[in-house]
Amino acid sequence: MSRTGAGPAVAREWVLDRLLDGPLRPEDLRLRTTELGPLQPGEVLVRNEFMSVDPAIRLRMDRRRGGSGAYPEGEPMGAKAVGVVLDSAAAGVPVGARVVTFLGFRDVAVARADELEQVDDVVGVHPAENALTALGNPGLTAWVGLTLIARLEAGETLLVSSAAGGIGSLALQIGRLRGARVIGSAGTADKVRWLTEELGADAAFDYHAESPGAALDRLAPEGLDVYFDNTGGPLLEAAVPRMRRRGRIAHCGSVSGYDGGGSPLRIDDVARIVQNSVTLRGYLVDDHRDAWPRALEELRGWLTDGRLHAPHTILEGLDSVPEALSDVLRPAAAHRGKLLVRLN
Amino acid sequence: MSRTGAGPAVAREWVLDRLLDGPLRPEDLRLRTTELGPLQPGEVLVRNEFMSVDPAIRLRMDRRRGGSGAYPEGEPMGAKAVGVVLDSAAAGVPVGARVVTFLGFRDVAVARADELEQVDDVVGVHPAENALTALGNPGLTAWVGLTLIARLEAGETLLVSSAAGGIGSLALQIGRLRGARVIGSAGTADKVRWLTEELGADAAFDYHAESPGAALDRLAPEGLDVYFDNTGGPLLEAAVPRMRRRGRIAHCGSVSGYDGGGSPLRIDDVARIVQNSVTLRGYLVDDHRDAWPRALEELRGWLTDGRLHAPHTILEGLDSVPEALSDVLRPAAAHRGKLLVRLN
Repeated sequence: MSRTGAGPAVAREWVLDRLLDGPLRPEDLRLRTTELGPLQPGEVLVRNEFMSVDPAIRLRMDRRRGGSGAYPEGEPMGAKAVGVVLDSAAAGVPVGARVVTFLGFRDVAVARADELEQVDDVVGVHPAENALTALGNPGLTAWVGLTLIARLEAGETLLVSSAAGGIGSLALQIGRLRGARVIGSAGTADKVRWLTEELGADAAFDYHAESPGAALDRLAPEGLDVYFDNTGGPLLEAAVPRMRRRGRIAHCGSVSGYDGGGSPLRIDDVARIVQNSVTLRGYLVDDHRDAWPRALEELRGWLTDGRLHAPHTILEGLDSVPEALSDVLRPAAAHRGKLLVRLN
Repeated sequence: MSRTGAGPAVAREWVLDRLLDGPLRPEDLRLRTTELGPLQPGEVLVRNEFMSVDPAIRLRMDRRRGGSGAYPEGEPMGAKAVGVVLDSAAAGVPVGARVVTFLGFRDVAVARADELEQVDDVVGVHPAENALTALGNPGLTAWVGLTLIARLEAGETLLVSSAAGGIGSLALQIGRLRGARVIGSAGTADKVRWLTEELGADAAFDYHAESPGAALDRLAPEGLDVYFDNTGGPLLEAAVPRMRRRGRIAHCGSVSGYDGGGSPLRIDDVARIVQNSVTLRGYLVDDHRDAWPRALEELRGWLTDGRLHAPHTILEGLDSVPEALSDVLRPAAAHRGKLLVRLN
């Protein structure tokens, strides 16, 4: 952005001109410059610091999604971002406030005060961790999935998919903090090592090097009590027949099918779902807002105690958005933890 | 059976000589005659009245099942049966008591007192309805699935598969009694008529005449709140993407895959499970014994009030067992309601 004296703010923003009918290509995205008008009452000018790059962004780019969920064509895209208020025409949102908006994909934005959330800074916690990882959606998604959906108990065996990803890396650690035996899956040997050596996984496997079924038979011959699934696809297919009696699958996303055609889920041994009384439950973290205060209290405690880490990878600059998007959708992506783009 | 004076009882019983590797053929079953020894302490001699012919019997006949679930080769098969005690060497189980055992497939049997259940006769209720349909496993399975697993509420839209079958015909009626709008699926036009004209379904369709997806789009354009699934297969595949927000699928069996290879479940729109927070939960009615008294009280009330019917079809005589088994596994079987064989 540039802003000179009282002159208008200018935003650089990523636009999707046409919703996607096939896999995302870099040329589908266009960077444009827009002069922002003067603030209207109830609006604030936000300088973005970081945006969150989530696989689910891809869903909103898809023509098949349709309805209110899809990005409007020819407009800047949205994504969770954390930033600082530069100018304010809204009571209660002062200049200097740190805020979370859905106005990522641009360096500066005009936000309506009733569509943003003010974030209390937490001592010793990085603003992006605070708002976009451990104490943001990823942390809440992991906490809700394990606590309310799967009701994970100490001593149980937990599988976490995409365990080196933004949500998975938190779910894996929360599983350990709850006293479960945790198995993580990831897409490179490097990440697998990182899971066991740094993040505390009891075991981990590379689903490119070994079929998920074979890996699970080797690492969890007794089967799984809980599967925290944020990938769908072959891992979910391998997990279902390996669930123990009263096994629970908390399913918060199907990254494997987001880009392109989407891979259908194929479960061969359907009878097992009945015989073992298996529950497969999809959920949205937004449906569990009443539990967020409890979740945030526990997550904040672990984070400030140093028992929970919020791994993240930062790509530098607005120009790296296409690379970040393509990376987050690639199964063997190099980044570890939550993928963020520094916008300013 | 024949029994002369104090001479030994002779049982006619169906034996499975070899577990199945492919679809069931009539010649896989053999009828043999066995002389029963004198009663040991704790045993009773039971004259069977009716046996329940369930699709799940097929699972126990399968070599792939293995372990404790499979029938032992060369021995008489088991199935739920209701009968009367003819002779007793067990305290607490008098001659004349009506009992439920897992000793179907034969006309007379020696049962251990600790492996049978005495049934209180209910005034005006047929013994087979009492023990093998509305107040037996099918009634409990339907009640538990709708009440505890799916938590069906008044005003919701409910789909029941195999709605003309033993469990489905009860689930459909219970759904109506709970104030839901109920759609039933069945495999013949005759049954579809029966569901709407006699059983009280709000709508019904023949899944052989119309694809389940098209039928559901026509009959439930707003989608489904609850799916009571006792078939799996194409109906489950059609239901998943049509579940409304917080939709629940209570899955108590996958008849479509029981005989032969088993059809895998294929779900194309996995992302919908998350977006709509859909729950798919398999369950076994035996895991919910603590709720049975409450279930039986409600079912018995409806049954004696005449608000719940326990549809059943009776095939006559032990010799009709192979026909009954083949019928219960056929998707367009002619029988309505629970299939029973009269054994004496």
